[in-house]
Amino acid sequence: MNDLRLAPLPTPCLLLDEAKMKRNIDRLSARAARLGVSERPHLKTVKSVEAARYVLKDGTGPATVSTLAEAEVFAAAGISDICYAVGIAPGKLERVLNLHRAGCRLTVLLDSAVQAQAVAEASRAAGIAIPAMIEIDSDGHRSGLTPDDPALIEIGRILHEGCAELEGVLCHAGESYHAVGRATQAEFAEIERHAVVTCAEALRAAGLPCPAVSVGSSPTAHAAKDLTGVTEMRAGVYVFFDLVMAGIGVCEVDDIALSVLTTVIGHQTAKNWTIVDAGWMAMSRDRGTAAQAVDQGYGIVCDEAGIPIPDLIVLQANQEHGVVAIRPGSNGTMPDLPVGTLLRILPNHACATAAQHGRYHVLPEQDGADLMTWERFGGW
Amino acid sequence: MNDLRLAPLPTPCLLLDEAKMKRNIDRLSARAARLGVSERPHLKTVKSVEAARYVLKDGTGPATVSTLAEAEVFAAAGISDICYAVGIAPGKLERVLNLHRAGCRLTVLLDSAVQAQAVAEASRAAGIAIPAMIEIDSDGHRSGLTPDDPALIEIGRILHEGCAELEGVLCHAGESYHAVGRATQAEFAEIERHAVVTCAEALRAAGLPCPAVSVGSSPTAHAAKDLTGVTEMRAGVYVFFDLVMAGIGVCEVDDIALSVLTTVIGHQTAKNWTIVDAGWMAMSRDRGTAAQAVDQGYGIVCDEAGIPIPDLIVLQANQEHGVVAIRPGSNGTMPDLPVGTLLRILPNHACATAAQHGRYHVLPEQDGADLMTWERFGGW
Repeated sequence: MNDLRLAPLPTPCLLLDEAKMKRNIDRLSARAARLGVSERPHLKTVKSVEAARYVLKDGTGPATVSTLAEAEVFAAAGISDICYAVGIAPGKLERVLNLHRAGCRLTVLLDSAVQAQAVAEASRAAGIAIPAMIEIDSDGHRSGLTPDDPALIEIGRILHEGCAELEGVLCHAGESYHAVGRATQAEFAEIERHAVVTCAEALRAAGLPCPAVSVGSSPTAHAAKDLTGVTEMRAGVYVFFDLVMAGIGVCEVDDIALSVLTTVIGHQTAKNWTIVDAGWMAMSRDRGTAAQAVDQGYGIVCDEAGIPIPDLIVLQANQEHGVVAIRPGSNGTMPDLPVGTLLRILPNHACATAAQHGRYHVLPEQDGADLMTWERFGGW
Repeated sequence: MNDLRLAPLPTPCLLLDEAKMKRNIDRLSARAARLGVSERPHLKTVKSVEAARYVLKDGTGPATVSTLAEAEVFAAAGISDICYAVGIAPGKLERVLNLHRAGCRLTVLLDSAVQAQAVAEASRAAGIAIPAMIEIDSDGHRSGLTPDDPALIEIGRILHEGCAELEGVLCHAGESYHAVGRATQAEFAEIERHAVVTCAEALRAAGLPCPAVSVGSSPTAHAAKDLTGVTEMRAGVYVFFDLVMAGIGVCEVDDIALSVLTTVIGHQTAKNWTIVDAGWMAMSRDRGTAAQAVDQGYGIVCDEAGIPIPDLIVLQANQEHGVVAIRPGSNGTMPDLPVGTLLRILPNHACATAAQHGRYHVLPEQDGADLMTWERFGGW
């Protein structure tokens, strides 16, 4: 049966299932409560003021962002406790200070003495103590000090003895995205916890404050068994989930709240291909499942109601064309999908796919209610 | 020497070199003139009204687009002859008709009888003859009829004998993006030419009109030796060029007009990594050079002036972090790049990278002149 609410939408476009999103948010909140830590959700996935209202319990924070543009939009919407979790460049401190002047407590992240000096100096010059977290690297993923790095204390002192505010330590176990299964993810979570707690204790032993001890990634947040010594968890993609998360067992395919609505625009019968109007511009170029046990191409193809069609994936993508085909090696059969048929595609990576779109068309939890439209933003 | 015009830009952001862009545009125009065909540039790469004014000779067309949103923006800017070169879905015909009513001659593309019937019926109902091109597939890339498909004549008759307008045949040799070297690209160009000309002759032999015979891809447009029987060429990425085009020899690295300005935000000295604030959100997830002879990671790293730093590439990318490193296997050395250093990254795929940004910061041809800002748009 066709959903009359979808027919007027211009395809490709982004659909968001309100009920699944709420379920995903509640699931992590329940975990955080059991583990005795607060949540500081990462809003880089949703980039929408309306969606942020669901994610944040009281609407004002705490929150995490990946760009100053996010911080500015969310601050303007009343979120007043934000961590900008990408290493700070000195040239960005004026925007940081402007957010403080506008009433938003924005915390910056750093892992070097030169950044700490810049933050302390900007704090001094402005008369605003910029809160700063020191980034810790638990798994070699990208930035951060290894827990045994003596620079930790030096950086802590520069911040604390200068005019900045040493807020604490922060770690992101990014390599956990490659960890398959709950048990392995729990090991990453323990390594992440151990790294930041070790550093927090080292700072305190040196007479420095360390009120915040922050961990976070969607896999470790869902797998951690114990977070003793940790004060908060950050996660982002758990709000929508995606095929990469399903592929490593953090969620089920049925938990994925985000999909791309697309229209069949042709066929290559000899090759058993169905062509749709969602290419990589609509799905993103993310091929995160390519290295997983099951390669989902550019996404799992569902019917208009969001039910996966067995073994049907987007095999290839050009800018505005998707090639829908039976998964190589499977014995599924291509269903009859005439030109004009609406389909939905589940994304490999929700952050990347959502970023290709200017708005969400939200399927309300209440059966048959009108769609809602939530604007998204991007940029820096 | 630092370029004082770049320091105030928020990084990451998109830079466009006006002089290189003009040189790229002129190069293809000269080829088209020599080959005796007109140009119908593809505006899916630039998605900017200001940039389109450079690409189109008289500012009104002919042009090619990949979405109806592009057609609507460019039509509103006075471009009145546009081909929407993605197979038409019947549900989109009302927007097509609205563009005609607004004075834009928008041509649609199709490769099936069911689409032709929908176009003919919409034309009849509206009293507007929608011009349509039949898509031909010369290399198995994605959509289109193979030149020997008897549906060609059937589709032509439905359009011509119905109330639509059979405008001609169109082919895109998309597989030429994998063809290395001018000689191989010239073979693809000849296969593309032969496919459409064969179909044009078949239509005419059946008593049907075929005024337009359209070919196009940046590699074949630059390599074609003879375009007898062809009336127009379409190409898009040639305006900016990118590392994929350089990797197959269509351009030099020095021809690439687009880059992403980024700031150094940290180091992992033990791994010889420099961390920058351009991740895949700024570069796109496109890894088009991964399958080429030289894998450029997420892009070649240049100094602030745009000069490539030997063997330096973006090795890995997270959402807002790029890991800059010496190309694996090379014996280059990491230069001293302190926190705050500005760098420029040349993209794998200009269409994908540009789409991640809301505007171009244009470096004017005239030495030292102020930067220009050109807005970009996206969506469907």
